[in-house]
Amino acid sequence: MPSRIALVLLSLTPWLAAVPAHAQSQSPLAGMPPEVIEDIVIGSRVLADFGVVDGFGHVSARDPANPSHFLMSRSLAPALVTADDIMEFDQDGNPVDARGRSIFLERFIHAEIYKTRPDVMAVVHTHSPGVIPFSVSKTPLRAIFHNGAFLAGGVPIWDIGKNFGATDMLVRNNEIGKSLAQALGDKPVVLMRGHGDATVGPTVKMAVFRAYYTDVNARLESQAIALGTEVTYLTPEEGAKADAVNFTVIDRIWNLWKQQVQPSLAK
Amino acid sequence: MPSRIALVLLSLTPWLAAVPAHAQSQSPLAGMPPEVIEDIVIGSRVLADFGVVDGFGHVSARDPANPSHFLMSRSLAPALVTADDIMEFDQDGNPVDARGRSIFLERFIHAEIYKTRPDVMAVVHTHSPGVIPFSVSKTPLRAIFHNGAFLAGGVPIWDIGKNFGATDMLVRNNEIGKSLAQALGDKPVVLMRGHGDATVGPTVKMAVFRAYYTDVNARLESQAIALGTEVTYLTPEEGAKADAVNFTVIDRIWNLWKQQVQPSLAK
Amino acid sequence: MPSRIALVLLSLTPWLAAVPAHAQSQSPLAGMPPEVIEDIVIGSRVLADFGVVDGFGHVSARDPANPSHFLMSRSLAPALVTADDIMEFDQDGNPVDARGRSIFLERFIHAEIYKTRPDVMAVVHTHSPGVIPFSVSKTPLRAIFHNGAFLAGGVPIWDIGKNFGATDMLVRNNEIGKSLAQALGDKPVVLMRGHGDATVGPTVKMAVFRAYYTDVNARLESQAIALGTEVTYLTPEEGAKADAVNFTVIDRIWNLWKQQVQPSLAK
Amino acid sequence: MPSRIALVLLSLTPWLAAVPAHAQSQSPLAGMPPEVIEDIVIGSRVLADFGVVDGFGHVSARDPANPSHFLMSRSLAPALVTADDIMEFDQDGNPVDARGRSIFLERFIHAEIYKTRPDVMAVVHTHSPGVIPFSVSKTPLRAIFHNGAFLAGGVPIWDIGKNFGATDMLVRNNEIGKSLAQALGDKPVVLMRGHGDATVGPTVKMAVFRAYYTDVNARLESQAIALGTEVTYLTPEEGAKADAVNFTVIDRIWNLWKQQVQPSLAK
Repeated sequence: MPSRIALVLLSLTPWLAAVPAHAQSQSPLAGMPPEVIEDIVIGSRVLADFGVVDGFGHVSARDPANPSHFLMSRSLAPALVTADDIMEFDQDGNPVDARGRSIFLERFIHAEIYKTRPDVMAVVHTHSPGVIPFSVSKTPLRAIFHNGAFLAGGVPIWDIGKNFGATDMLVRNNEIGKSLAQALGDKPVVLMRGHGDATVGPTVKMAVFRAYYTDVNARLESQAIALGTEVTYLTPEEGAKADAVNFTVIDRIWNLWKQQVQPSLAK
Repeated sequence: MPSRIALVLLSLTPWLAAVPAHAQSQSPLAGMPPEVIEDIVIGSRVLADFGVVDGFGHVSARDPANPSHFLMSRSLAPALVTADDIMEFDQDGNPVDARGRSIFLERFIHAEIYKTRPDVMAVVHTHSPGVIPFSVSKTPLRAIFHNGAFLAGGVPIWDIGKNFGATDMLVRNNEIGKSLAQALGDKPVVLMRGHGDATVGPTVKMAVFRAYYTDVNARLESQAIALGTEVTYLTPEEGAKADAVNFTVIDRIWNLWKQQVQPSLAK
Repeated sequence: MPSRIALVLLSLTPWLAAVPAHAQSQSPLAGMPPEVIEDIVIGSRVLADFGVVDGFGHVSARDPANPSHFLMSRSLAPALVTADDIMEFDQDGNPVDARGRSIFLERFIHAEIYKTRPDVMAVVHTHSPGVIPFSVSKTPLRAIFHNGAFLAGGVPIWDIGKNFGATDMLVRNNEIGKSLAQALGDKPVVLMRGHGDATVGPTVKMAVFRAYYTDVNARLESQAIALGTEVTYLTPEEGAKADAVNFTVIDRIWNLWKQQVQPSLAK
Repeated sequence: MPSRIALVLLSLTPWLAAVPAHAQSQSPLAGMPPEVIEDIVIGSRVLADFGVVDGFGHVSARDPANPSHFLMSRSLAPALVTADDIMEFDQDGNPVDARGRSIFLERFIHAEIYKTRPDVMAVVHTHSPGVIPFSVSKTPLRAIFHNGAFLAGGVPIWDIGKNFGATDMLVRNNEIGKSLAQALGDKPVVLMRGHGDATVGPTVKMAVFRAYYTDVNARLESQAIALGTEVTYLTPEEGAKADAVNFTVIDRIWNLWKQQVQPSLAK
C-alpha cells in the first residue's frame, strides 16, 4: 500500500503565472493556449504520481488555434514535464520548430489519431500496469464500475504483429500509427498488445481521467475475476448513461489532482 | 492506490481552534456542533489518505441539534474538505442554505438512510477498491478478522438495475435512495453493484472505521480465497462479540488518523 | 511493499539523548534499559511504516533487570509510541505502576509467552495483512526465501474457538494467553485465526525482523501459489542454516529502519 | 507500483561536486571514476525507493581503469549508500583496502560474473518481491511487454541446492559464485531459487534498468496469468528488437530517477 510524503515548502511560487508570461514573450510558447498547456503538465504529473506512467508515456492536446497540429512535451519523463517543454507538431508528427530538442519516438500515436478522429482533442499514451495484463490476454477489459463506464462499449486490442510482423513494438512511423488509429475506431480506449494503451477525449482532462480509470478499472476487474465466481459488468446502456455523468464531475477530481501536483511544480 | 503522508513544516496553525471561532461568528457554521464537523473533516481526509475514496465519496453526520437534518460537505473531493465546506441538508436532502455552492448528486444516499434508520448518526459513501469486486461478484463479503467483525451478520448487495432498469448507476433522487436504504435494512454496510458501498454507524468515527475496515477485510478475503483452500470466517456470534470491542478501541486508531491528517489541514 | 522517503527537517533534536535523561530522573522510565526502550519505539514505528501494524498491534521486551517482568507501551497506536509511553508489567501482565494510563487488553499474549519461553526476550503482536489470509486458510505458511527462513520449521495456527468457543477473538486473560503460548511451542511465530500473529525473538530487533518478514514471506507465497504450478519451499535444513545468517545481518536492515523512523520521532 | 514526490529542501548541497573532490584527494575514492560511482549510488537508492531492494541487495560496477577489479559499497542497506562507501575489490572478491570496513558476504556473485562475462560492466543483486515467486515456481518468467524485452531470450533459474546440497542459500564463496555465473550464461538475468536474482548490463544504468523491469515484468506476468486465459508473450525476435530500444531511452528514465533520489542524497 504505497503512500507518499507530500510536502509544502514555505510559499509556493505561483507557477501558473509563468504561462501567460511565456505566451506574451517571444518564447517558444508564444501563441500556445496556456490552459491547454497547464492541463498537459498537470495530467502528465498526476499520471506519474499514480504510477499510471513511469519514466515513459505522454499526454498531448490538439492545438485549438490550428486544429491540424498538436502540442506535446519534448522527450522527457512525464513527472518532469513543465510548460516550457511543450512543443508544436504538425499533422504528420513533425516538430514545427525542434530547436535541437529530442522528441518522442512514438509521436505517431498522437498524429494519426488526431488525423482520423476530428472529435478527439487530447491523447494519452501509457504503459499502465493495470492494463498491460489485459493487452496480452484473451480476457476482455470491461466496465466494472461507473467511473470506468466509458469502457462499456468495448475495448479493442491492437496487435502490432498482425500487420507488421516482428517489430520493436513501437509506433515509430505514420503507417503504424494509422493502423493503431484504425483499431481505436470510434472508441475512447485502445489496448496495445505487450505495450500499453492509448486513451482519447474531447479535452485533456477527460483523456487523463480515462487513462487513470482504465488502469483502476482493469485492476478491479482482475480482483473480481480472482474471486472465482460470475462477474456482472455494466451493460452498454448503463455505460453510456454513467459516462455522461463523468463529464459533469471531472472538475471535482481534476481540482484535487491539480493541488496534488502543485508542490512538485513549485520545486 | 496511493495515499499520502503530509508533513508539517515549521509551526502549524492550530486549525481546530478555528472551528469554535466559526461557531461563534455569523458564519454558515453558526450553530453547528464543532466536534461533529471536525470528525467529518478528519474522516473525509483519512479515507482519502488510505485510498478508500479518491476524488469521489462523502462523509455525513446527522445534525445532533436537529435530528431530521444532516451535515455534509459541498461537492468537493474528500481530501480537500474543511470545516467551512460543511453544509446543512433537510430530511429530503435539500440544502437549507446553498448560497450558490454546488452539492453532491448522491446526497439522497444519506437523506434516505437517516430517514429509515433513527439509530444511524453518520453515513459514509465510497467507491472502495477492495469492495467493488465484491459488489459485482457472487462471492459474498464475509468477516475474515475481528476488525471486520461488523460484517459477520451478512452484507447485502443492492443492484440499482433491479428496480430502476438501465440507469447512470447513481443515487440521484429520493426514490432510489429509499430503495438503497431498504436494502441496507438493519445492517452496518450495504454494497452497491458496480459502484461502491455505504457504511453507517452511531458516530462519525464508527462509520469511518467501518468504511476503512470493510475495504481492508475485502482485500484480505480476496487474498485468502486466492490461496485456493477452504477459508474459515468469523461466525455471527464471534462477529457480534468482536464488534463490541471495536467500539472500545476506536479512539486508539482515531487519534492516529487525526494526527495523520492534521498536516494536510494546516496547509 | 512500501518504502518511504524520510526527510530530516532542519536539525533533528537528538531524541535518543532524552532516554538516558529520563533514566537518570525520577521519571517512570527510571531504571529501564534505554537501548531496549529505543528498540521498542523504533520497532513499533517501523512496523507501522510498513503497514505490518495499523492502529493496533504491540511490541514488548522482557525486562533485562527483572526477567519475570516485561516492558510495553501504554495503549497507543504503534506509530505514536515514544519512550515515555513504555510501562512495566509483571509476570501476569499487571502494570507495576499504571498511574492512570490505559493499557492493552491483549497484554496476556506477552505475559504468557514470557512465562513459557525463557529464551524469548521480545514479543510482537500484529494484524499483518499478509498473514491474516493464512490464519484462516488450510494452506500452510512456509518459508519461500532465505529472509523468511525462520518459518521453515513449521508455523502453528492457534484457533481461539477450539478451547474457548465463540469469543470476541481477543487474548483478554491469562488462560487464553497460556493457550496461545502453548500453541506457539518452541517456534518463532504463531498465527492467530481471524486475528493476526505473534512473533518472538532473543532480541527486540529479531522479533521485529520476524514480524516484518513473516508478512513479506506470506505475500510472496501467495503470489507464488497464484502462478498455478508447483512451488519449492526451503527445506527445514536450509531454513535452519539460512536463519542463522539473519542474525548476522540484522543490524544492516535495523540501521536503515532506525533512520527511516527518526523523522517521525523528531516531529 | 509506487512513485514518489521527491522534494528538495532549501538549497541542496551539490553532492556530486564532492566526488571529483574525493577523486583528487588522498581519500579512498582516489582514482575511482566519479560517473560510475555516482551511478552506483543512484542505482542503489532508486531500487530501494521502488522496493526492488529492501535492507539487502547490492549494485556493483567493473572498474574501468582496472577491468579485473570491481567497485561496490561496503556492507550497507542500498538506501544509505553514498560515494564514500564505495570500495574496490579484486577479481576474487577480496577488498583491495578494507580499512576495517565490513563487506558483503555475497560479493562472489559479482566477482565470478565479471570473471566469466567480459562484456558485463555492472551487476545488480536483489531480493525483488516480483521475482521471488518465479524463482520457486515451474512457471517461467517471460517478456510480457517491451520494457521487459530483455527477458524474451529466456531466464535461467539457478538452484543452489542442485550442486551444493542444503546450504544457507547464500553465494558465500567463489565456487558457489562460479556456479551462479555459469547458470547465467550469456543472459542478462538469472533467478536464484528462494533468494532473488542477479541482473547484468554493459553499464550500471542498464543493469539497474533490468533489475527494475524484471521486477515490474514479473508482477505484470503474474497478473496476466491470474486472468485465467491464454497469455501472449513477446517472441524472441520481438524481444531482441525491443530491447535495442531500451538502450536508446534509458537516459529518459535515469534522469527521472536521479532527480527522485537527490533529496535523500542531500540529507
